[in-house]
Amino acid sequence: MAATSRAEANWEGDLAKGGGHVRPASGAFGELPISWASRSERPSGINKTSPEELLAAAHSACFSMAFANGLSKAGHHVERLDTTAEVDFVPGQGITTIRLSVRGRVQGLDERGFQKLADEAKDSCPVSKLFHGNAEISLDARLVG
Amino acid sequence: MAATSRAEANWEGDLAKGGGHVRPASGAFGELPISWASRSERPSGINKTSPEELLAAAHSACFSMAFANGLSKAGHHVERLDTTAEVDFVPGQGITTIRLSVRGRVQGLDERGFQKLADEAKDSCPVSKLFHGNAEISLDARLVG
Repeated sequence: MAATSRAEANWEGDLAKGGGHVRPASGAFGELPISWASRSERPSGINKTSPEELLAAAHSACFSMAFANGLSKAGHHVERLDTTAEVDFVPGQGITTIRLSVRGRVQGLDERGFQKLADEAKDSCPVSKLFHGNAEISLDARLVG
Repeated sequence: MAATSRAEANWEGDLAKGGGHVRPASGAFGELPISWASRSERPSGINKTSPEELLAAAHSACFSMAFANGLSKAGHHVERLDTTAEVDFVPGQGITTIRLSVRGRVQGLDERGFQKLADEAKDSCPVSKLFHGNAEISLDARLVG
């Protein structure tokens, strides 16, 4: 049985000068403005979202769940995982690279064991599988306590 | 030159009973709660987000931009596009299907021309390319004015 999630976007005008909005069906957050300029330039401090920022949010959340699952199934208590995902978009080329980075406070294993299970989560998480073969996915995993 | 987007997630505990949050670096929306129950069950009316809802938001936004670009490059004025993306997640199996649906008010072309350019946008949009080969992507495109 599939769980179905839904979102809606609208757009008016051409790519360069037009603009639009995106909103999730759940109402978890409200309607957000989107534009080509904010997507393709992405200076820090910008407070519009972009398709790539939404992908980064999806991947960081999915990886965190998969890693927590792998760690707890292996008998380790997950105090906390902090994951960052960075998504690179090259206009004219596409989405080229995703960098995952995780810091974990987990009991009962050493750095090597932590990194092994992190690598497994990187490969097995459903969002990684959705991207598989189409973008480079790197991972930097460190046990911090 | 790549435009880099970033998001962060955290998680505490195991998959079934634990929970976490996700937030985009832009601040376009605030920190949102995530949980396995809200991801895997996804009854309507739930107001937590999920990785799949964030993917749906990314895909609907990206497709809308690509389609607006294709239409305006072909000389058509885009009054408005309304796109919905639905993402199916099957626990244990993964992200299986994405259904795109678009309704457009566009001047200067007929239904057939509209559907042809919609198909091209489905294939060429960077998010579709990122998912390519790993999930079924369908499209229902209709000109409404």
